Amino acid sequence: MIGGGWAARFLLNGVDVALYDPDTQAPRKVGEVLDNARRAFAKLTLAPRPAEGELTFAMSPEEAVAGADFVQESAPERIDLKRSILGRASEAAHASVVFATSTSGLLPTKLQEGIHHPERLVVGHPFNPVYLLPLDGFVADRLLEALWREALWLVNDGVATVEQIDDAIRFGAGLRWSAMGTFLVYRIAGGEAGMRHFMAQFGPALQWPWTKLTDVPELTDELLERIVEQSDAQAGDRSIREWEALRDDCLVAVMHGLRSAGFGAGEVLAGYEQQLFDRAPVPQAGDLDAAPLRTHATRIPADWVDYNGHTNDSRYAQLSCDASDALLRLIGMDAEYLAGGHSWYTAESHITYVAQSGANDAVHVTTQVLAHDPKRLHVFNRMYRSAVGGEGDSLIATGEHLYLHVDTEAERVVPAPAEMVARIAAIAEAHAALERPLTSPGCRRARSSKRPDCSNAPNARRAR
Amino acid sequence: MIGGGWAARFLLNGVDVALYDPDTQAPRKVGEVLDNARRAFAKLTLAPRPAEGELTFAMSPEEAVAGADFVQESAPERIDLKRSILGRASEAAHASVVFATSTSGLLPTKLQEGIHHPERLVVGHPFNPVYLLPLDGFVADRLLEALWREALWLVNDGVATVEQIDDAIRFGAGLRWSAMGTFLVYRIAGGEAGMRHFMAQFGPALQWPWTKLTDVPELTDELLERIVEQSDAQAGDRSIREWEALRDDCLVAVMHGLRSAGFGAGEVLAGYEQQLFDRAPVPQAGDLDAAPLRTHATRIPADWVDYNGHTNDSRYAQLSCDASDALLRLIGMDAEYLAGGHSWYTAESHITYVAQSGANDAVHVTTQVLAHDPKRLHVFNRMYRSAVGGEGDSLIATGEHLYLHVDTEAERVVPAPAEMVARIAAIAEAHAALERPLTSPGCRRARSSKRPDCSNAPNARRAR
Repeated sequence: MIGGGWAARFLLNGVDVALYDPDTQAPRKVGEVLDNARRAFAKLTLAPRPAEGELTFAMSPEEAVAGADFVQESAPERIDLKRSILGRASEAAHASVVFATSTSGLLPTKLQEGIHHPERLVVGHPFNPVYLLPLDGFVADRLLEALWREALWLVNDGVATVEQIDDAIRFGAGLRWSAMGTFLVYRIAGGEAGMRHFMAQFGPALQWPWTKLTDVPELTDELLERIVEQSDAQAGDRSIREWEALRDDCLVAVMHGLRSAGFGAGEVLAGYEQQLFDRAPVPQAGDLDAAPLRTHATRIPADWVDYNGHTNDSRYAQLSCDASDALLRLIGMDAEYLAGGHSWYTAESHITYVAQSGANDAVHVTTQVLAHDPKRLHVFNRMYRSAVGGEGDSLIATGEHLYLHVDTEAERVVPAPAEMVARIAAIAEAHAALERPLTSPGCRRARSSKRPDCSNAPNARRAR
Repeated sequence: MIGGGWAARFLLNGVDVALYDPDTQAPRKVGEVLDNARRAFAKLTLAPRPAEGELTFAMSPEEAVAGADFVQESAPERIDLKRSILGRASEAAHASVVFATSTSGLLPTKLQEGIHHPERLVVGHPFNPVYLLPLDGFVADRLLEALWREALWLVNDGVATVEQIDDAIRFGAGLRWSAMGTFLVYRIAGGEAGMRHFMAQFGPALQWPWTKLTDVPELTDELLERIVEQSDAQAGDRSIREWEALRDDCLVAVMHGLRSAGFGAGEVLAGYEQQLFDRAPVPQAGDLDAAPLRTHATRIPADWVDYNGHTNDSRYAQLSCDASDALLRLIGMDAEYLAGGHSWYTAESHITYVAQSGANDAVHVTTQVLAHDPKRLHVFNRMYRSAVGGEGDSLIATGEHLYLHVDTEAERVVPAPAEMVARIAAIAEAHAALERPLTSPGCRRARSSKRPDCSNAPNARRAR
């Protein structure tokens, strides 16, 4: 598992790997780890990756290290086994080659016994999955082990189950720990008064009977001073307010990430949002003849903003898309409808940019139905920065879209059901008297054609 | 800090709050927490949030709980103080009102003494920031405290600094803990053999001298069975392969989130990507007359895909935008140029959708310069799913854009410098012989106008 993870990390970064493992199943097992790693890297970055390194399987430690620039040892945690492999490999390798060991607890001084040029042995202890996590080292093991011991006590004493303990981590401190360690988190919690205040307030709690016979460090003046000094150095020039904002940004970003993975706190966030949607007022049948429809309102998220400090152009396409989604829900394209094998796909989009917007600006979108038939829907969205104080709404962009009604199984354009067409017709009728915008020839072309060329099924669009 | 966090959480979810705090600075302090919370919530979700609840400051515990549906006590961790406040408040509140205490370690049985209707007291211990983290409870405190004690020993003994200890968390286990607790992480690490295998392999390490005098639970058969059984229940129907994939998805998503926040492992990822870009081959001056330019190649990220399983329509705008960015870098729009107060802004975009693409599809974009003058640049991008095996490239979408050269300070359209125009001209000349696509009237209109109406400065575009 660990050796295969190292191999994957090297290979995916363009480094050739010669691997020795006496297990005859090693090629299969390493291949599985490598498959996982390839999958993860494809998601990890859009940056241009180097060509994968070459993987060969060696028949002995000596063969594996021949000509190597670096050696990573990841044998099981048995000191005699590790010593034997390191001894043979270190004799065969060039004297300048660094040896790293994946041991999670054996002392390097013990492993150096029997190694040739023992000064070149370092601990290179990784964390699973080896191909993704940046950290290696030993200090973390003591921290992990402390938490692990406590978790075992909790299970042993029947205080909590394995699942409850895991939940107690991943819905709270675990979210913070992905971005900041305990010291910085506590410093921020201390507020303006800082680390000394925090320690003074919570230090005595260390003496509480939290757990079984455990020796607790005494919070001497000397230890307190050391912590305060090191914490000041860690915090650098950022003020507590800035650290608070950064902590919150990280937590929000991590929760957004987990939402996209559909797990843990991300699942909680998605559920919370579903509740918000369920409780929000939705357009009613009587609103269908409002002209034009106010289909969408939101605030510009901070990560939609580009290096110029304005909303990125591609995000107006998304804003317009979200408004059209609302229209489509209004005419009956709900989850059940989609599950039934029909949907509206986008054939063309035309965005014009009128004025700027920035992070947190309140914006809303109106939708005008320009034309329709059972297979086609031509809409025009106007995006506004919403009125603040005495100022009126101001137009920031427009989005024109042609949608086609498709059978998603057959990937063919087919007529929408009569009930849906009737709803569109009611809206279109109410919009007929509205001023018509200048439109795009592509959308008009597709509209006027009796049979648009949709043999290449057009691209899908997103709904909530 | 904690009481203010609870108030913010309630208020932002539409619940009215009456707050009692003898500190005369409370309104200012709570206001600051509330500002932080508003800022975080604006980023957290685009879902329609309810109108904020109303915050009032009460002059006594009795006044605060009058008419309340729920009471949250967050006084300092002094048992006499908490008892006094809870006693007064519980007498004034309706007998059916639940009281939650934010205590992080005082026993509820001790706090119940002196409370009216003591059966209604529950521990509602939150985690900072209270307005963002889903968890409350007590079990987590034992785990946090165990890690905290170990961290204090590490500082006390001079093994590591505060910053090193924090780094040992946030670049390794902390990333995992944001999604999964220790038990599940270890189960996955155990591979196909599962939890029993993992415990058998690492259980003995519990007896190693990791730390100071600490009582360690003995890994009896009974404890082992309990852990295995509970771990099986936790893992449910997902196979180890599925759990591995989910773990990796979560880690990648969390790192992406942290990259957007510019911190921790996200900073590491951004640095790694910068290295990849720096090492990747870039277009050379000699490539300028390639016709059309191959400006961008990537894979469709998993989170670009919508409920139909295809790339969302708005993401083609982004793909096209990324290709145009590459063109703009090629003609000299680099970081230095932007810092000098000039940029190219997008005036219009026209996207057509030809065929579908899905997660992980290799795609590339070609760029054809259709027309230009010193203030305007009209380009046509063709997006392709890249050839795999024997199949050729297949067109999936097109993007047509009109860009205007602007003085970003004055927000006015101004001519680009001669050198940049010359580079554009060289490309345009090479592209003149290429087949011209059908174009959008908006872009043509703006091109043919002597002075396009750019008084409302158009929207900014993004570069890497």
